[in-house]
Amino acid sequence: MNQSIQCPGFEAAGIAAGIKKNQALDLGLIYSRQPAVAAGVFTRNIVQAAPVRLTRARVGGGRVRAIVANSGNANCCTGAQGEDDAAHMAQIVAAGLDLPPGDVLVASTGVIGAFMPMDKIDAAGPELTGALGSQGFGEFARAIMTTDTVPKLIQRRGEIDGHQFTLVAAAKGAGMIRPDMATMLCFVCTDAQISHEPLQQCLKQAVDRSLNCISIDGDTSTNDMVLVLANGHSGACIENDGQRKIFQDLLDDLLVDVARRLVQDGEGVTKVVEIRVEGARSDEDAFRVADTVAHSPLVKTAFFGEDANWGRIIAAVGRAGVPLAPEKIDLHFDDVLMFKDGMGCGPEAEVRATAVLKKPAFSVGIALHQGAGTARMLTCDFSVDYVKINADYRT
Amino acid sequence: MNQSIQCPGFEAAGIAAGIKKNQALDLGLIYSRQPAVAAGVFTRNIVQAAPVRLTRARVGGGRVRAIVANSGNANCCTGAQGEDDAAHMAQIVAAGLDLPPGDVLVASTGVIGAFMPMDKIDAAGPELTGALGSQGFGEFARAIMTTDTVPKLIQRRGEIDGHQFTLVAAAKGAGMIRPDMATMLCFVCTDAQISHEPLQQCLKQAVDRSLNCISIDGDTSTNDMVLVLANGHSGACIENDGQRKIFQDLLDDLLVDVARRLVQDGEGVTKVVEIRVEGARSDEDAFRVADTVAHSPLVKTAFFGEDANWGRIIAAVGRAGVPLAPEKIDLHFDDVLMFKDGMGCGPEAEVRATAVLKKPAFSVGIALHQGAGTARMLTCDFSVDYVKINADYRT
Repeated sequence: MNQSIQCPGFEAAGIAAGIKKNQALDLGLIYSRQPAVAAGVFTRNIVQAAPVRLTRARVGGGRVRAIVANSGNANCCTGAQGEDDAAHMAQIVAAGLDLPPGDVLVASTGVIGAFMPMDKIDAAGPELTGALGSQGFGEFARAIMTTDTVPKLIQRRGEIDGHQFTLVAAAKGAGMIRPDMATMLCFVCTDAQISHEPLQQCLKQAVDRSLNCISIDGDTSTNDMVLVLANGHSGACIENDGQRKIFQDLLDDLLVDVARRLVQDGEGVTKVVEIRVEGARSDEDAFRVADTVAHSPLVKTAFFGEDANWGRIIAAVGRAGVPLAPEKIDLHFDDVLMFKDGMGCGPEAEVRATAVLKKPAFSVGIALHQGAGTARMLTCDFSVDYVKINADYRT
Repeated sequence: MNQSIQCPGFEAAGIAAGIKKNQALDLGLIYSRQPAVAAGVFTRNIVQAAPVRLTRARVGGGRVRAIVANSGNANCCTGAQGEDDAAHMAQIVAAGLDLPPGDVLVASTGVIGAFMPMDKIDAAGPELTGALGSQGFGEFARAIMTTDTVPKLIQRRGEIDGHQFTLVAAAKGAGMIRPDMATMLCFVCTDAQISHEPLQQCLKQAVDRSLNCISIDGDTSTNDMVLVLANGHSGACIENDGQRKIFQDLLDDLLVDVARRLVQDGEGVTKVVEIRVEGARSDEDAFRVADTVAHSPLVKTAFFGEDANWGRIIAAVGRAGVPLAPEKIDLHFDDVLMFKDGMGCGPEAEVRATAVLKKPAFSVGIALHQGAGTARMLTCDFSVDYVKINADYRT
């Protein structure tokens, strides 16, 4: 973890409150020294955890000051008690920082259906606010991990009209990652100055280009959210189209990097695979094909086995529900053409494709020759460890 | 294998032609001593193997005499050569039995993209037709196995107007099993007398109630078909509604049994789980909920871990794309109520539910309280062995 990652005007902390076992970090806090504009994108799952409902209501255009986030407990399916607990988490932080409780956002991740251990969070309040510091993002990123094996903390810097500005993202992912709101927690801090509506639009676009184009296991969670806080500390002001493009490009780049790291660290992942579909009748058709291939257990287990099993990919393409002509499809592993004119390209191509499959990252190119629609999706293999991790998760 | 399973007027055989390694049985034949009415249901995958195209064209209302089926090679993505090979397989059998080639149906299962070893099938022709016998269904059922661990051969008997009649099904499944034509091979022989149209309708209905309600891994194959041959040998004549109901009920029952055995013998399966959804706004909504739960890798790995992780099931229900009120959902494992009023039912329920999860077969009941729509789907767990089997399949 790069301890030098920080964002001017922001402080962060991560501590062990005893929510998880073994004294692992499990409670994090982000604090802006001045009021920050907030934007958010939330899970589309109809079953939503208490902190999702609370935070969604508070990200409405007003300014906020802090985000408190915990791992080890999702505070989901916890009824009225869960609503009270989420609100109380905000109050604990607000009291420690002398803020109105409505200025504090809340996020939780972990097991569904258990009540938050509020006694532990109450007791940890002073330590949490006391640990705040501009160097605290590393601990924060660790405090939100569940089955992640490495923390995700990324920085980007840009310049607008002579003003340097910074973007910092702390994220957690692992299982339950798929389109329709790539399921995870991601918190972005920036010292750029921007108002709520354009910030919300930029976030939506960046998420569509990044976190909504990845898949680990096809499940979506009840707790996921991406939040951005912009505190304007840098003086870099985003108002006109040119300024907005600079900010958008940097935010896109940041979240694409987050997305790739989430897939790389997906549960049991040994291969990161980009599915590139082109020549579909529309982008929507291309997305359906990419999505079907990216989620096929047979394709994903073949990736794990380093098997250039193009037959399973073609079979997945064929059941995507999109009109196509099988004999027109070209299939590449990286630059190796493996399927053309309705048939495999023979043993020599297979030898070369097998070499591609041994790499930790590669692409599968699917050209349909039906039109101009394209889509890209990042996926991973399905490993023995994925099953072991998820069979044992609660025990 | 019950050697006594036979169907009057039919003969069958299964031999080792050398398509598979290790002298395993890999070439099977079903023969009707008199012309038989045929009906068929085929994969909806756009990518279809050569034998699927050939057999679909031949099951059009005319009568047929035989089905030749092989394992070890799917004859899919094999171009014009594959078409010729499928036709030649029918010719080999037709020559041996002195039939027109158009009276022979063809089915293949196995690896995609390799040419059929026609020299071996040519050489095996005389042995195959010579091995035909009324007791040959056991060998036939073994000859169509791929990663199945046990052959599936099932018999039912009924009576119409004093005439006893028989239904026999031989099937193979294992991986690639999902709705939209539960993906596998299934051959049904009956000595009932019925014409093409009603037979096709009865088959379609029975498949919708059985094989289209099971899921192993969500993939569908390029080769799957269910065929019925009815040779009328028994004199049991199916014409009026009452006769048809007797036949339909027996065919439904037969294919439900086939479906359950396919799931039980799914790749790496240790648990067979019936997902029962009720109280949806429509049957379609109920099906979407059942389908989403039945295919969730997180739910299926929890089944493997014998973990009564109702949170993952509720999360899958919430992302099914169906309008619902989470606080109205009741969730049961067998008869144990585990989730009600938006919350889990506590540690005592969890202890009882965990005992249910330790059984090899159980049900998950999901009551939505939104309407009268219902659906049932049979699924299974996702095990370490599933991944191992599919990572190593071609090696």
